[in-house]
Amino acid sequence: MILIGEKLNGFIPAMARAIEARDELFVRRWARAQSEAGADYLDICACGAKGGDREALGWLMEIVQDEVDTPLSIDTPDADVMQWAMARARRPGLANSIALTEGKADCLLPAIVQTGFSCVALLIDNGVPESAEERLRVFDRLMRRVDAHSLAHDRVFIDPLVTSLAAHGESFRVFAETCRGIRAQNKNVHIVGGATNVSFGLPARKHVNRAFLALAMGAGMDSAICDVTNPDIMGIVAAGRALLGEDEMCAGYLQAFRDGKL
Amino acid sequence: MILIGEKLNGFIPAMARAIEARDELFVRRWARAQSEAGADYLDICACGAKGGDREALGWLMEIVQDEVDTPLSIDTPDADVMQWAMARARRPGLANSIALTEGKADCLLPAIVQTGFSCVALLIDNGVPESAEERLRVFDRLMRRVDAHSLAHDRVFIDPLVTSLAAHGESFRVFAETCRGIRAQNKNVHIVGGATNVSFGLPARKHVNRAFLALAMGAGMDSAICDVTNPDIMGIVAAGRALLGEDEMCAGYLQAFRDGKL
Repeated sequence: MILIGEKLNGFIPAMARAIEARDELFVRRWARAQSEAGADYLDICACGAKGGDREALGWLMEIVQDEVDTPLSIDTPDADVMQWAMARARRPGLANSIALTEGKADCLLPAIVQTGFSCVALLIDNGVPESAEERLRVFDRLMRRVDAHSLAHDRVFIDPLVTSLAAHGESFRVFAETCRGIRAQNKNVHIVGGATNVSFGLPARKHVNRAFLALAMGAGMDSAICDVTNPDIMGIVAAGRALLGEDEMCAGYLQAFRDGKL
Repeated sequence: MILIGEKLNGFIPAMARAIEARDELFVRRWARAQSEAGADYLDICACGAKGGDREALGWLMEIVQDEVDTPLSIDTPDADVMQWAMARARRPGLANSIALTEGKADCLLPAIVQTGFSCVALLIDNGVPESAEERLRVFDRLMRRVDAHSLAHDRVFIDPLVTSLAAHGESFRVFAETCRGIRAQNKNVHIVGGATNVSFGLPARKHVNRAFLALAMGAGMDSAICDVTNPDIMGIVAAGRALLGEDEMCAGYLQAFRDGKL
């Protein structure tokens, strides 16, 4: 599992306030905590904070890169800001995200290839397709763009989109069916899911987040944007890997336990 | 999900002591707690306690049936004791368990049919088959005995056997493959798993138990022997049902939350 720390996100009210106030210490603490908890990437999103994207994102990137070496997942819907930010990254990370919509994939893929970045690719095209079949059709079209730009498949993190279960009862089933459809034809792309979105609007969200993670891993998801500092989330990930045969002799599980992560 | 409370079991040291001391209050409390937490059956096992099975089991049954109306899952490896206990049950429950070994299925099925009991059927035959293919062959032979005795398939809880992950790295994969194989040919039998066995020998067992439950539900398991009094276990079950589309509008999840079970 490739884990992307979700905490440096301006849509989280406390983080939005920290970004607006340029509260360096608060940001450094979360960068450090997620890095030490085992994040492979740190998602960086300034969108939720007042005062716009570029300047805030640039500030966030400087602080975080100064604090830790963990690669960044640059999270912006603006293709210009993304290119600007990729150029400022001290090491290759994740461009989060590209999609077919408005030619964003073709616009960003050359820079992604050139900078050594990987990318999160959303299975949307003028809205979120309702069925797994439609999402798989978007996947095919998206992979044709990926191939046209000669980006290696293992640098693509497909996000099949998990919507809120409270709003869409079929949310997980469509997600899982899309995962299985992707895995049936492509073993090299990564599949990533936002493990916190699914529980939006429900009480006791932790249970839904945990069950989603395990079930999604069972369906072929091999990367998650999640709270890596939460021992119960890390426990599900470590146990899920061991149960699914991705952790020989439970060595990773036992190491995570010894490291105090569970 | 059909939930079988695991706590009235003499293999749990505190319960063994309570059974040996005929500690009525202790047993009543666990019977009540599991029943109120939402158990569909209460597993009753006196095996671990000193002094043998029949008398202790009879005592346990009387106390528990006096305290709650929840049907019992009579858990004994001894076919004579099982028949004796089924006759003392005030309402039909689960016979846990039958198997092909030593003709136990043919010995017990007539009484199961006659008493209105359902049964847990283990996929063993002179030992635990290693592969899913072998377990599915045992399943076929077992279902022929079930059909020979005209027991309705929805009164059969197949236990595909989940062994300790620490001892058998392929434990869950074989379990899941067996579940999927059963579901591919039979939608009516129940599939049950012991959600606590899998984590034996590992630290921070709760994570493994939770991940197992979600992953097993994803593979087709629709019943579990588990700690129904644990909100994190009930949370995984309720969230798993909602995610898998077995809980329209999350009504059961929301009710469980309002009832303080999560």
